[in-house]
Parts: sequence; structure tokens; C-alpha cells
Amino acid sequence: ARDSEARDSEPKADGAAPVRKAFGPLPDGTPRPTRKEAEAAVRTLLAYLGEDPAREGLLDTPKRVVKAYDELFSGYGEDADELLDRTFGEIGTFDDFVLLRDIPFHSHCEHHMVPFVGKAHVAYFPVERVVGLSKIARVVDIFAHRLQTQEHLTSQIINALDEGLRPRGVAVMIEAEHMCMSMRGITKAGVSTLTTQFTGVFRDDPAEQVRFITLLRSKG
Amino acid sequence: ARDSEARDSEPKADGAAPVRKAFGPLPDGTPRPTRKEAEAAVRTLLAYLGEDPAREGLLDTPKRVVKAYDELFSGYGEDADELLDRTFGEIGTFDDFVLLRDIPFHSHCEHHMVPFVGKAHVAYFPVERVVGLSKIARVVDIFAHRLQTQEHLTSQIINALDEGLRPRGVAVMIEAEHMCMSMRGITKAGVSTLTTQFTGVFRDDPAEQVRFITLLRSKG
Ligand SMILES: Nc1nc2c([nH]c(=O)n2[C@@H]2O[C@H](COP(=O)(O)OP(=O)(O)OP(=O)(O)O)[C@@H](O)[C@H]2O)c(=O)[nH]1
Ligand SMILES: Nc1nc2c([nH]c(=O)n2[C@@H]2O[C@H](COP(=O)(O)OP(=O)(O)OP(=O)(O)O)[C@@H](O)[C@H]2O)c(=O)[nH]1
Repeated sequence: ARDSEARDSEPKADGAAPVRKAFGPLPDGTPRPTRKEAEAAVRTLLAYLGEDPAREGLLDTPKRVVKAYDELFSGYGEDADELLDRTFGEIGTFDDFVLLRDIPFHSHCEHHMVPFVGKAHVAYFPVERVVGLSKIARVVDIFAHRLQTQEHLTSQIINALDEGLRPRGVAVMIEAEHMCMSMRGITKAGVSTLTTQFTGVFRDDPAEQVRFITLLRSKG
Repeated sequence: ARDSEARDSEPKADGAAPVRKAFGPLPDGTPRPTRKEAEAAVRTLLAYLGEDPAREGLLDTPKRVVKAYDELFSGYGEDADELLDRTFGEIGTFDDFVLLRDIPFHSHCEHHMVPFVGKAHVAYFPVERVVGLSKIARVVDIFAHRLQTQEHLTSQIINALDEGLRPRGVAVMIEAEHMCMSMRGITKAGVSTLTTQFTGVFRDDPAEQVRFITLLRSKG
């Protein structure tokens, strides 16, 4: 009961923030914090960093931050396998790969909880199952809307597509700027981190890898 | 004692994060949360959003997040007046304004605690006091490294320079992208928010305002 209070409360009158699934207790048996407890945690952080959480501009901040978290981290309540189950149509005589270039995404690094922002490029060689294009972008979002490293994000996307679509191969490239490197720490802005991963024909046939990369760079 | 434990602990072996001033208790008399309490608050938020704070990748996250906060919100421990007190040199025969274009900054909106990122442009007409150029950029950082709205950031910068340097006038323009608009909510990426503010001759003489804006746009 405590748990469903935590997760199912506030089904958002204006429909903006997704309604999140109720999560079970933590692996060690501790119950999940409620929304109220999460808001109190934000208040603690505000006071820690030198603010007065009671000043006017900050009165609604704990509520807004937790609501923003529900949206920015909505991926924990979503299941990529389920999404990809809804494939549609026959492949027909199409016999090449499908490439989605420049899927914009926002994620947060699991080390500092600071955003990293960039683009994902995804190609797959369908065999029998064709999937709605938006579903590929949704898979990217499901994993991006969690705390991540770029490497894990890359492999979680490729594994989900590989298992969900059983294609001849999948290629994923992610380019992102990590704000934990631009805003703090070493404070280098504009650094692009690239990760790639390949399965099936993309892994086994260097010519297909080259074709994938060439198409990415051939902007009209 | 509780307070100095909160703020003065961990003077950073590698020197990366600034050592923060100790803050007094909150206006209502409540003592500031300690660093340990801030780390516990991060753990609460991790559990709330659907994570297991005990999984390996997240074990050090509360420590890192609080350390990142010390850096990202270092402005609460810093004083712009004090900084600008150290003016140097005579103005000599120089009789025009000094313009710093494209001072990059990162700040966080006080509504969602999400970054906003952009550039500040600052011009001032010195009278007697000339200040080190880096001090102007430091004033931007002192205020950017707090929870802000863009409007308050703009006026805090201009007020600090106006009072600290007593110049014939100050002009400030800020252009920024608010990630609370690109990552969540309305999810419009690439929107630029512009704010300007003028004092003295910049406010009173439209020709000086035009010259300021023209110089900003005249990139070589
Ligand atoms: N491989 C990888 N590393 C990452 C990602 N995101 C991210 O913050 N990191 C790195 O994780 C490391 C965390 O290291 P750390 O325990 O020394 O923490 P820190 O805050 O003192 O490190 P820093 O100040 O160098 O950023 C940093 O090197 C940071 O750049 C990512 O997506 N992939
Ligand atoms: N004037 C101004 N508004 C800002 C700044 N930063 C910032 O988040 N806002 C706005 O503050 C408002 C907060 O509104 P709200 O209480 O309805 O919170 P919300 O999260 O539901 O709003 P949203 O989903 O429309 O962003 C939003 O309109 C947001 O765009 C800023 O620097 N200046």
C-alpha cells in the first residue's frame, strides 16, 4: 500500500508527465520512498547547497523536481521487449537495412546524475519482422530515461533490438556531450563521446559497417 | 560544530572541487544538513526513481553527486562585491566601453534544478576603476553557480558590476538554452532565451545600446 502510494499518486491532471508504474520494494526489502519523502530529500539538498528552501521562488521546487524526475527517468517503468512485441507487416521484397539517423536523446550519467545529450543512430536488417519506426526511437528513449553510462546505453539498445526483432544484424552509434565533463570536473565543453556496437552482419561484414558509417555522414 | 562538519569536511585531496564556506543555519533556525544527510537524500531520490542504490554502478553516486553540487553551486559561498573590490590601475586616456563577448556559463533553473546553458555578454564604461577582465567572467560564474532564473541572473550581474565599479554604464545580454524546456515538459530543443539589461549611458543613450548589440553580432 505504501508503495502504490509512492508511485500511483498524482495521475497528472494535464497529462504531461507519464504516469509511472508502481515499483516493488528494494532488493534488500526496504520499501520505496514515497513521493513526499522524495520531495523532502530535494528540500534537504536545497538547504545543503546554501539555499533557503522557504524562499518564495523555491517553495514549489521540491514538487517540480520530483515531477521532472518522473518524466526524465520514466524509462524504469517501461519495457522495451513489450514494445517491440508489436511488430507489424511483412518484409515483402525489401532486402536492405533500415537506418534511423539523428535520433535526439537526453540521458543522465549514473555517476553524477548530470545530463548527457546527443544523437543515436540505429540501423537494422529486417528478416521477417518489420517494426514501426517510432518504436526504434522509443527504445532509445526507454533506456535513455534511466541513469546510464553511454556504453551501457549503447549495448542495452542493441540487445533489445537484437532480441526483439531477431534481424540479420543491428548497428548502433551514439554521439553525446556529457555535461559532467563540460559543467564541472575537467570543464571541457564541446567534447563528443562516440560509441558504436554491431551485431550479426554488421559485426561480421566490414563492408556493411563502412556503409552504415558512410550513410551517417552523407547528409544532403 | 554540526555546521562546519557539513561544509568544511573533505577539503578535496586533488584540489578539483572548491572548498565551500560554512553556511549558517537556515533563517528559521534549523541547522544545515550535513554532507552525510545530503548523501542520504540522494540515496532516497535514487530509490524513488526506480533504481537500486546498492547496485555496483551507483555505490559512489551519492558522494559524487554531493561533490558535484559543491562545484555546480559554489556561488553561494562567494561574494561578488569582495571580488570587485580588487580593481587595479588607472583608466588613462581610454574613453570607450570594454566588451566581453561570449562568456560561456552553466547555471540551473530554480524551478526544476535542471541546467540552462549559454553565453553572457557584458560591457562596461569605466570611469576611474578598471578591473581585471577575468573578474567580469568570475562575477558571471558566481551568480550562475546558484539556482537561478535567467532574469535574476541578468540583473544580479548588472547590479554587482554597477555597484562594484561605479562605471558610466553597464550592458548585459544573456542567451541560453533551458534544458527544462528541451529535455522535459514541452520538449522544444534549440530555443534560445535572450535577456538584456542596461544601466547608465547604455540605458539612456539608444545609440550606445545599438553599438553594443552591433559589436556582439560583428564576428570576424
Ligand atoms: N565510461 C564512462 N565514463 C563516464 C560516463 N559518464 C561519466 O560521468 N563518466 C566518468 O565516470 C568517472 C567517475 O569518476 P570518479 O569516481 O573519479 O568521480 P569524479 O566526479 O571525481 O570524476 P571527475 O571529476 O573526473 O568527473 C569520471 O571519469 C567521468 O568522466 C560514461 O557514460 N561512460
Ligand atoms: N521566466 C523564467 N521562467 C523560467 C525559467 N526557468 C524555468 O524553468 N522557467 C519556467 O518556470 C515555469 C515553472 O512553471 P510550473 O510551476 O508550471 O512548473 P512545470 O514544471 O509544471 O512547468 P512546465 O512543465 O511548463 O515546464 C515554467 O513555465 C518554466 O518554463 C527562467 O529562467 N525564467
